[in-house]
Formats: sequence, structure tokens, C-alpha cells
Amino acid sequence: MKSINLLGASGSIGTQTLDVIREHPTEFALNAFAVGKNIEAAHQIIQEFHPKAVSVSKKIDAEQLKREYPSIKCTYGDEGLIEIATDPGGDLVLNAVTGSLGLKPTLEAIKLGKTIAIANKETLVTAGHIVIEEAKKYGADLLPVDSEHSAIFQCLQGENKKNIDKLIITASGGSFRDRTREELKGVTVEQALNHPNWSMGAKVTIDSATMMNKGLEVIEAHWLFGIPYEQIEVLLHKESIIHSMIEFHDSSVIAQLGTPDMRVPIQYALSYPDRLPLSKAKRLNLANVGKLHFQTMDLDRFKALKFAFEAGKTGGSMTTVLNAANEIAVQAFLDRQITFLEIDDLVEKALLNHNPISHPDLDTILQIDKETREWVRSLLPHR
Amino acid sequence: MKSINLLGASGSIGTQTLDVIREHPTEFALNAFAVGKNIEAAHQIIQEFHPKAVSVSKKIDAEQLKREYPSIKCTYGDEGLIEIATDPGGDLVLNAVTGSLGLKPTLEAIKLGKTIAIANKETLVTAGHIVIEEAKKYGADLLPVDSEHSAIFQCLQGENKKNIDKLIITASGGSFRDRTREELKGVTVEQALNHPNWSMGAKVTIDSATMMNKGLEVIEAHWLFGIPYEQIEVLLHKESIIHSMIEFHDSSVIAQLGTPDMRVPIQYALSYPDRLPLSKAKRLNLANVGKLHFQTMDLDRFKALKFAFEAGKTGGSMTTVLNAANEIAVQAFLDRQITFLEIDDLVEKALLNHNPISHPDLDTILQIDKETREWVRSLLPHR
Repeated sequence: MKSINLLGASGSIGTQTLDVIREHPTEFALNAFAVGKNIEAAHQIIQEFHPKAVSVSKKIDAEQLKREYPSIKCTYGDEGLIEIATDPGGDLVLNAVTGSLGLKPTLEAIKLGKTIAIANKETLVTAGHIVIEEAKKYGADLLPVDSEHSAIFQCLQGENKKNIDKLIITASGGSFRDRTREELKGVTVEQALNHPNWSMGAKVTIDSATMMNKGLEVIEAHWLFGIPYEQIEVLLHKESIIHSMIEFHDSSVIAQLGTPDMRVPIQYALSYPDRLPLSKAKRLNLANVGKLHFQTMDLDRFKALKFAFEAGKTGGSMTTVLNAANEIAVQAFLDRQITFLEIDDLVEKALLNHNPISHPDLDTILQIDKETREWVRSLLPHR
Repeated sequence: MKSINLLGASGSIGTQTLDVIREHPTEFALNAFAVGKNIEAAHQIIQEFHPKAVSVSKKIDAEQLKREYPSIKCTYGDEGLIEIATDPGGDLVLNAVTGSLGLKPTLEAIKLGKTIAIANKETLVTAGHIVIEEAKKYGADLLPVDSEHSAIFQCLQGENKKNIDKLIITASGGSFRDRTREELKGVTVEQALNHPNWSMGAKVTIDSATMMNKGLEVIEAHWLFGIPYEQIEVLLHKESIIHSMIEFHDSSVIAQLGTPDMRVPIQYALSYPDRLPLSKAKRLNLANVGKLHFQTMDLDRFKALKFAFEAGKTGGSMTTVLNAANEIAVQAFLDRQITFLEIDDLVEKALLNHNPISHPDLDTILQIDKETREWVRSLLPHR
């Protein structure tokens, strides 16, 4: 029985994690969880899974929950997130909060040697060098949850990292795969939110459309697997059936495939190093699919991916800037303050504006994150 | 340094094995080898690789070699093959002889606990139950060399067999993939020998055209991986890029891909459990390939595959009959005694004619093999 501390329980990854726990009641238990403002979800989760601790965004909500469930530890805010991550009853922390909020709880749980299943991109994108160093120091295992990283991680089992020639991360191309940059000028938020293969949150769906999502994944892959950027390749594969691949130095390529279902990588992170049945998952039928398509990735078309590779290669605080600028820009697009193409423009401006610092410590990272957000916000039109 | 006893050194697999040994002189050495009648090849191999022992088909050739290379042990015939397989200087036996000739040497090497790299189909098709039992008893590892089985074996590393739902063996469809049975009536030997993806020996190329090769591979996979026939599927995949796959019970599919190059699986068998670089191998470029195609396998079109599944499920001596009848029929087609479609007919007749014996011992297998060959020969037209 593995006990899980789940951060971000009401989001897309969070609810699917609960689905996996629900399917394997003798294997997994929810020890503690955090949601933001979705108190309705908190109620349902408490009643179904009987966890020992809960955290929410606001103090007032925590106090209300405490009155209703006096036997449960109820906390709130940034400190609450850390308490949930470090709750001693949990063996494994699944971090599925969105944004740089996820960083500190991860680092605190790592210090306790807990296994961390990472669905929070910012953890590795903004502070990869610190997270990897600390995980090594405290012997904490880091497990990927993203379908692409899970694919690589699955392909790596029984293999030796030294034999890797290349990681090949596949990209569906997002909502606007077949449009030129010219054709992207007038696109709406609704069009951008219509992802062809995966049903995900708004932020990550927009990131898929700009290809920044793949860029962040490249940076994550660099840190998770310790592979130089020069050995990471992104391949356009519109069906999202091959989730990613490893090419070894004997030319053999190992790939992980499946229908798009996030419960598969989530469950793999929970069940690792074993696998468990997942009866609800739709089976891949390649004869029905008929064809798989592959195309080289055009970095002039998908500028965000180029920025991510460049920021990654520069390293230091550059990826923090990339991520912070992108978060503000995407939110501004969702708020209809800027156009779709202006997301790329803002990210590019922020990167050009920044003097990178190598090996920044956590405080420096958080400071740069904050400054970048303010700077990008200052560029937004006041509509 | 691994020392190799190579059976079938002048054939397609044999020469590519020598290529792999040649590329890694500090990793591999040729300890002993056997060829048939290709004495020219024997000379070249002796001069390049300086082995300790050689075996050929005929006594007279062995005597001649002995005179030329007095320091080398020279043997011949069936006994010679066994001596090469069991030569104490070799850690690993790569058995690439064609036909049921390969069975006894494999069994004798297994009794010495040697690692066996199996490229000889008959070993598992005609006597799978004995080979697997003996390998378990003497702690001998069996490693696949066929690209499909190597693919499955590579995908299985770091995984637990109990989690396998399905083995998915891919099939290119051979030279006549897109023809109906009606359109196969007039095909010539030359047309059948023209395989679209792989360059192989005549027997296996014809077996690819009839799909019997895939049928034999299904039976081999059953024995090598201990998977019931009901969990083995054959998928038509004309590019031969995905060499085979495993579907696990969590719906995750792991696949091995590459350009068609037999040196990759051969080298993997030699280097296992590690990988070594293979600089000569052409790298897979999926963007250049563009598309991968998949289709269900029509068992009425590819009758040989249906026969193989049926013979496998019946078990016992039935697969010995399948293999023996097929060998005679293919040779008769190559000798222009029968038409292409008559290969299937002869195999079907032989299977219908046989009363299967469960758990036959080696003598019974060899007897049934012999009787089947004679019986099928008796059906051949005397042109």
C-alpha cells in the first residue's frame, strides 16, 4: 500500500490521479491533498477518500473545513501546500499544482527523501539544477508524470543511460499545427483551447498551441534524464500515439505508445517500478489507427520551442525567465489582453532583457521569477 | 571479452555476426565456427579471426583444412556441429544454421549451461518444450536473434512478464503483400525472392512471402517468452520499422524500432545485457520515413500464418510437422517442382495427415520430422 500526498487534487491531473487511486483501493491510499479554491471538490475528496490532511488557498475555507471535519488536519496557503507535501503519512508526493507555487513544496518533500511524482513543470524548468542536486543529496526518487517523460522513463527501464544517443520527444503540434504564422494572426482563445488529442487545462492547452509546452518538456527532460540539449530532438507526430522515444548508440530505438490517456503515466508513476492493470484505459489498436505521421519540427514556425532550446542551453536563470514570461503572456492571451502571436513576442522580449545568472539559488530564482512577471505585466496593453 | 561459437558462419546471419565481431575486437572473439560446403568462406574466416576450431559438412574438406591449419581443430558433419557448439572455449553459441540440423547442437550446448543466441528457427519450432525445459534445468540463457524477437526481448528489459497482455509481432507482408490469393497463382521464384525490406536467405524470403516465417516466429515467441498463443497478435506493417511490441496490462505499449539491419539484433544478443555502439548502422529518421502503416492480418489470405497458430495451439508434435512439411514444400517451390500456392496446400495436407503426440521426446521429434519430409516428398509431382 502506497500513501499519496496529492498537490493540485481538483485539476486535470489531480482528478485523474484520484481515478487511479479509486481503481486500486488495495494498492493506493490518499493520505493528504491540496486544492486551491475548489472547496466543493475538497468536500467530495474528503468524503470519498478519508485523507488525514487537507490544504486550501484561503484561511477562511480551511477554518470552515475544520469545523465540518474535526478529525482532519486543515491548513491553507503556501505553508499549507508544504505541510501537505511533507505530511509524514505519505510515501509519494504527486505534485500537480500549476505554476511556480509547486517548487517549494517539492523541495521540502525531497529533503525528507520522499518519492516525488512531478506533474508540475515549473519545478524542473525554473529550478532544475537545485531539484536534481537535492534529490541526489537526500536520495529522493523523481518520477515523471507527463506522458512524454513517462514514455522516456518507461523506455529507459532495464537500459543504461550511458548508451543513450538521443531522446526523441514527440509533439502533436497542438490546435494550430497546420497553420503558418501568418494564419495565426487572428486566432481566438476558443480556437486555441481546442486541442486535437488531449483534454487538458487551459494553460497547458495554449502552451501546446504555441509549442512552449514542448519547450518546457525539453527542459524537463534535460534535467530528469541528465541528457544535453544537443541530444534532445522534437518530432512532429500529429496522432500523439508514440509518446516519446529513446535512440541508443546501437541505433535501436525504444518507444512507448498508447491512446492519449493521462491515467496511464499517472498510474505508472504511482505503481513504479511495477505496473498495475488499468481496466478503464482504451487499448491502442494500430490497425484501426492505420497510419502514424512524422514531420520535422520547424523552429521558425514554432518559435517558442526555439526560445526554450536557447534558454535551456544558456542555462542558469534563463529558463526561469522563459517560464515566468510565458505564464504571464498566456494568461494575458486568455484574458484577451494580447493576441496569440504576442505570446511569443513577450517571451522573446523577456529573454532578451535578462542577464542570465549561473547556478542561481532558490531565493534568486524566486526573485527573478517575480521580477520577470512584473516586467512582462508592465508591457501589457491596458485594454 | 566474450568468446563465440558460431554455427552457420557463411550464411546471411553468420556473415553479419562476423561483421559485429569485427567491429568490436576488444569485446568479442570468434572461438569456433561451422560452415557447410563453403570452404572458401572457412579459409577467409580462419585467416581473419584465428579461431581454435572449425567444422564443415564433409570429412574430405575437414581433412584438407587440417593440413593447411594444423593448429586448428577441424571436424565435420553432424558431430562436428555439436563439437563446435560445445567447444569449451566459447561462452556464447550463436546458432544460425538452417533447418533441423540446428537442434542437437543447441541442446548439447544448453547442457553445458552456455548462453545460446538462437537464429535457428527449428530449435524452438520443432522442440520448443524440450529446449525451454533443458535451458531452465541447466541455467542456460536463451537470447533471440530474429529482429522481431529481439524487439520483444529489448522491450521486456526492466519489465515483469506477468504484466504482459499481448505480444504484437509486426509483419512486412513479404514480396506479395498486396496480391490476392488469386493473383498469386502464376508467381515465379524470382518474384518471390524479391523481399521489399530485408535481404535474407532464399528459404526465409519465401517463408516471408507465404507468411510462414511469421507463423514460425509466433511459435518461437510463444516458447521464448512463455506467452499463450491467444496473447500473440500479428500486425501488418509494411515499412518493417517497428520490429515488434509488447502491450502491458496498463495499456502501455513498448516498441522497438529501427532501420532494417540484422546487425542490430545480432549485436544485442552478443552484447546483452549491455548495448554497444554500432557505428555502421543506418539511423532511423522517422521524419524522412514520413508515415508508418498498419493493417490487420487476413488469415484467409495468409493461410500459412493460420496453420502456424493452429499447429501451435494443438502443440506437441504438430509444429514439428508444420516446419518439416514447409521446408520440403519451399525447397520444391525453389526447385520449380510446385507452384507458390501449393506450398500452403502441402503444409495443410501434412497437418491434416498427422495425429499429434503431446510432449514428444527428441527421438520422436526427429522421427516425425523425417517421416513428414518423406511423406511430403511423396506428394511432389515428378517433373
